Amino acid sequence: MKKVKIGVIGAGRIGKLHAENLLHFPQVELKAVSDVYLENVSAWADKLGIPRVTGDYREILEDDEIDAVFVCSSTDTHVSIIMEAARAGKHIFCEKPISFEMEQTKKALKSVKQAGVQLQVGFNRRFDHNFRKVRESIISGKIGNPHIIKVTSRDPAVPPKEYIQKSGGIFIDMTIHDFDMVRYLSGSEVEEVYVQGEVLIDHVFAECGDIDTAVTVLKLKNGAIGVIDNSRKAVYGYDQRVEVFGSKGCITVDNDYPNTALISTAEGVYQDKPKYFFLERYHHAYLEEVKSFIESVLEDRPVLVDGHDGLQAEMIAHAARRSWLEKRPVKLSELQNDDERNFSDCEGKRFPLSS
Amino acid sequence: MKKVKIGVIGAGRIGKLHAENLLHFPQVELKAVSDVYLENVSAWADKLGIPRVTGDYREILEDDEIDAVFVCSSTDTHVSIIMEAARAGKHIFCEKPISFEMEQTKKALKSVKQAGVQLQVGFNRRFDHNFRKVRESIISGKIGNPHIIKVTSRDPAVPPKEYIQKSGGIFIDMTIHDFDMVRYLSGSEVEEVYVQGEVLIDHVFAECGDIDTAVTVLKLKNGAIGVIDNSRKAVYGYDQRVEVFGSKGCITVDNDYPNTALISTAEGVYQDKPKYFFLERYHHAYLEEVKSFIESVLEDRPVLVDGHDGLQAEMIAHAARRSWLEKRPVKLSELQNDDERNFSDCEGKRFPLSS
Amino acid sequence: MKKVKIGVIGAGRIGKLHAENLLHFPQVELKAVSDVYLENVSAWADKLGIPRVTGDYREILEDDEIDAVFVCSSTDTHVSIIMEAARAGKHIFCEKPISFEMEQTKKALKSVKQAGVQLQVGFNRRFDHNFRKVRESIISGKIGNPHIIKVTSRDPAVPPKEYIQKSGGIFIDMTIHDFDMVRYLSGSEVEEVYVQGEVLIDHVFAECGDIDTAVTVLKLKNGAIGVIDNSRKAVYGYDQRVEVFGSKGCITVDNDYPNTALISTAEGVYQDKPKYFFLERYHHAYLEEVKSFIESVLEDRPVLVDGHDGLQAEMIAHAARRSWLEKRPVKLSELQNDDERNFSDCEGKRFPLSS
Amino acid sequence: MKKVKIGVIGAGRIGKLHAENLLHFPQVELKAVSDVYLENVSAWADKLGIPRVTGDYREILEDDEIDAVFVCSSTDTHVSIIMEAARAGKHIFCEKPISFEMEQTKKALKSVKQAGVQLQVGFNRRFDHNFRKVRESIISGKIGNPHIIKVTSRDPAVPPKEYIQKSGGIFIDMTIHDFDMVRYLSGSEVEEVYVQGEVLIDHVFAECGDIDTAVTVLKLKNGAIGVIDNSRKAVYGYDQRVEVFGSKGCITVDNDYPNTALISTAEGVYQDKPKYFFLERYHHAYLEEVKSFIESVLEDRPVLVDGHDGLQAEMIAHAARRSWLEKRPVKLSELQNDDERNFSDCEGKRFPLSS
Repeated sequence: MKKVKIGVIGAGRIGKLHAENLLHFPQVELKAVSDVYLENVSAWADKLGIPRVTGDYREILEDDEIDAVFVCSSTDTHVSIIMEAARAGKHIFCEKPISFEMEQTKKALKSVKQAGVQLQVGFNRRFDHNFRKVRESIISGKIGNPHIIKVTSRDPAVPPKEYIQKSGGIFIDMTIHDFDMVRYLSGSEVEEVYVQGEVLIDHVFAECGDIDTAVTVLKLKNGAIGVIDNSRKAVYGYDQRVEVFGSKGCITVDNDYPNTALISTAEGVYQDKPKYFFLERYHHAYLEEVKSFIESVLEDRPVLVDGHDGLQAEMIAHAARRSWLEKRPVKLSELQNDDERNFSDCEGKRFPLSS
Repeated sequence: MKKVKIGVIGAGRIGKLHAENLLHFPQVELKAVSDVYLENVSAWADKLGIPRVTGDYREILEDDEIDAVFVCSSTDTHVSIIMEAARAGKHIFCEKPISFEMEQTKKALKSVKQAGVQLQVGFNRRFDHNFRKVRESIISGKIGNPHIIKVTSRDPAVPPKEYIQKSGGIFIDMTIHDFDMVRYLSGSEVEEVYVQGEVLIDHVFAECGDIDTAVTVLKLKNGAIGVIDNSRKAVYGYDQRVEVFGSKGCITVDNDYPNTALISTAEGVYQDKPKYFFLERYHHAYLEEVKSFIESVLEDRPVLVDGHDGLQAEMIAHAARRSWLEKRPVKLSELQNDDERNFSDCEGKRFPLSS
Repeated sequence: MKKVKIGVIGAGRIGKLHAENLLHFPQVELKAVSDVYLENVSAWADKLGIPRVTGDYREILEDDEIDAVFVCSSTDTHVSIIMEAARAGKHIFCEKPISFEMEQTKKALKSVKQAGVQLQVGFNRRFDHNFRKVRESIISGKIGNPHIIKVTSRDPAVPPKEYIQKSGGIFIDMTIHDFDMVRYLSGSEVEEVYVQGEVLIDHVFAECGDIDTAVTVLKLKNGAIGVIDNSRKAVYGYDQRVEVFGSKGCITVDNDYPNTALISTAEGVYQDKPKYFFLERYHHAYLEEVKSFIESVLEDRPVLVDGHDGLQAEMIAHAARRSWLEKRPVKLSELQNDDERNFSDCEGKRFPLSS
Repeated sequence: MKKVKIGVIGAGRIGKLHAENLLHFPQVELKAVSDVYLENVSAWADKLGIPRVTGDYREILEDDEIDAVFVCSSTDTHVSIIMEAARAGKHIFCEKPISFEMEQTKKALKSVKQAGVQLQVGFNRRFDHNFRKVRESIISGKIGNPHIIKVTSRDPAVPPKEYIQKSGGIFIDMTIHDFDMVRYLSGSEVEEVYVQGEVLIDHVFAECGDIDTAVTVLKLKNGAIGVIDNSRKAVYGYDQRVEVFGSKGCITVDNDYPNTALISTAEGVYQDKPKYFFLERYHHAYLEEVKSFIESVLEDRPVLVDGHDGLQAEMIAHAARRSWLEKRPVKLSELQNDDERNFSDCEGKRFPLSS
């Protein structure tokens, strides 16, 4: 059996998740993990039998046996690591966002292109069983042309202040997933963005120049309208639903629940809350996205979520932030030069389903 | 417009309900109401503008202008009133059961037949929007041949002791509706009955020689198996559901709820309890059954629930009681003579839908 | 029993509906109906036993016995009829919108105030069992402070061109109900409106200077954000849902369905489509709104949906249209003078539930 | 880390499933697999890196390093293998049923007791997330004392004739899981069994002296009544639901579905069928049952499903078959001698939840 040899760079929560998932695939050999806080990682890596742990990611890039790397370090390190990895000929899986600055992201994409390596961006939700079903139904024509795409995306709890400060703001940290979802489901690029945002939950967001509640309206090139509603605190748990309304029908997907039990008592009818946060909700989606990346590398075919997808979502996030600050609709073309406007048009491209 | 002139005999809870419903139909003239407790009825009848109220139902039967009567008096009076009404040439709507004794019921049916009048029995649930949909789906062949018919039928609260004592027992008082439902949905007669029954809720049932919890298995002539589960006390409200499993699929109907609201909080996800008891749950079904009876009378076509249906359900109830007492399956043929066995076979008859 | 004597002005679809509903209430005497197309109304009125039918609504206003009128004529006649009715001392129930022009509506409200009569506006959805439950849950504090209010409101089919031309456009014809719903549920006034609208269904809307698909974002004075999505054609039927997300939870209400049946076959699991259009969906809400008006008149207490509510919803509709035309968020204060800004502030007012 | 060394005896569908699941646990070392059809197993074992494959299970029993065995061979070999394994001091996980003959099963249990080893029986459904939730709700008292326990258990397709012939009949092959479920959920032993069974799907069952459709009523020692409905062919897929009705409420669990999508079109509202058959539906339950067994062995605490549970379910199956053949309710005491009647009473024993 042909195997992919992989190194994981950055072993925080998400890096550990990917590493553990990689261990499930017989066609993967997880050769090394790096993290700047070596002491947080050694025992964990030992227990899992990961052969090498290092404090310096360059050791991974210099290992000729390694075919691909997972970039799970902090966002401000992504671009330089991607560029070095590309030069070293490694295929790259990078967590979202690629960077906080569009120019930086473009630099990274350029070096990937020059090196001819694969780059997959961590929009795991495309691999979720529910959202996949929505995309399938749209592709099959069951609901006709999409007219309205609605995304509900709410986190269960306010993150710590240190996280908020480094997050780049709600749009590039949280809504970026929803921007990608609207693109994925509609099969169309975004033309214009309007945001109505507020601090309604916790003043800490105002202190960080950020908001905790936002409604975003997207005008798509194919005429459809996207609407995203975000909250940083849904007390009943992670709330991740989608609805697409089209000329021939409507598809909705609800949250996943831990069980199907309904309890009827003298007080009312009860069920459990939805699954709590992304590790539970997207458990399988994370496995599927890794599997898809491995297959792309092994079979040398294009990844399903590429650098263009990463860049587009970031661009929408930047436009959204500007809309919020300037209290007006913002066209994506305001952020682009003419070349980019052509580059960003994916109308002809079909958003593929994972196999 | 041709009108039906109607008298209501017995104005307890159900008699009042029918009288009030009759006022909704422009093709009905509600001419009179009788009740032995005149003082409980007069003010109510006055307010509704019912022209005549009497303590003696014979006045209604003697009124030549009256076309049809609703027999809503106590069960022990049904047979004699039906017989008198039939002789007086009135069409008859009779609440269930026709009587507590099969021989009595047969006597009543005979006089109805001789008089050539219509007799509809108050199995209102056949006119419910949910159960109608089940019957429709079976007739249309959507689920193929029925194999298993499951009826859940639970009351919200224990009735007063006086009610239990006069009720004739759970089978002829409560389960009789479910026996009719199994016949209606399956389109087949019952061959054998087995009951497992207990007193689990309130000792008052034991004192009355009755039970409060029962599971009844019915073997149908077409091979299908029916299962009914009854309880006299579902603390969450009236529980009335049906499931029919067949060779091509399965249809289930849930309860009706007062609204579609789902509330998600930190504790869980809540909805309101089902509609409370039969007046709310079967509000429309009662209107529909009356409408159907009026149309049958006006257009001189057979009622949708006739004396045969009333007799069959009673016969199953008697067999069920015997099964419970003797702790063994009981064949309906044990209760019948040879003539009746032929008479009771409705295999060739199609249980019709209300229009 | 004290009775209200009522005349109905305009007996098109909605006027007939109200007239028929009025016949259900023993405390109402429906004395007369007027319609300019007398020939369309006479047979219908006869059959229902309505004593007087006229081609001239002034006959109704001049009838001293009549206490209240239902204004169900075409919108362009509302203001003059309201003013005449108010001068004649009649209480008024008026269909939405009061008028197409804010100045006209204000004139009507002024004359109502001067005459000291009641004016209820036909926002029937406030009386719907589902939306009432949402409002109840908010008032009871179950979901905390509302942060996001989402209204889905889609019609089942495109109306005829003649209707579209006279409708005043989607915002004042259709979305006006949703504007009222957001105010009702949030208990707050609207400050700013942004619209993203398109013609995606039928070119006839473009020909009439109108749109068929719209997403509207509302900024409320209490900080909450409202989002409405509208379509003129949901092929699966009338789609009327609401979701309110707050600091302590979230409440959603689904559509009403004709039954609770689920059919599972080899192909999948099926249920019937939601109830078709407003006559079925809001059957009970129409009865309830009329009942509430009658009680207000009989007991001389304020109506639950008054002229202020009518005016506010119209004002939001005008702002929405301007936002669509000018492609920018529009503040309601742009449409008001200083007096009106005070007048329109209902923060202190509690949106009451119908009893 | 302390490890359990395991051998798997019999590598058909279910043996392979267990072997693959065992590979997921770092605290397990899967040392060997045996199967009489060595050629069907070698390539599979190789690919998974299982160190030893043999045609003779005795090699596994003779391996002193092996702590525990999974008995997944054909049912007729279970008893002798269990007895040999017990004598060899191995802990045992055995698939259901232990045997087709009660006397045989008792012999096996006796040798297990004498050897002092653990024996877990493969009632995997106790470890399912939905049924666990039901058991939890009952233990916590949320629905009060159970009165009625309903189990729906239907297979998606008729098995091959060879399978049916060797299956021991529907009760010991299929319903045995449901018998265990009723015991588990109710926390009570069964006293009496009544069966109404038919061949409605495929004549092959009649040819094998078996049935394809059955309704079973169980009288429990705590007074509750159990009802199980079985079919060998639900065209819409595996149908596994449970309902427990009690003095304080009712809990129902629905099937699991592959996604939460609802598609509304002009034809109706659709969702996907439930998960297809046991490998998908009980994927996690199989992992959980293996995990629980490993923990019991490692921590030397009683298994959650022991030999008593296996024997009881078999006894109910035998009574059920007798009831079907003799067309009468059968008491379990008819099958037991006096000692066994005491032995079988688990009223004092609390059916534990897996941790």
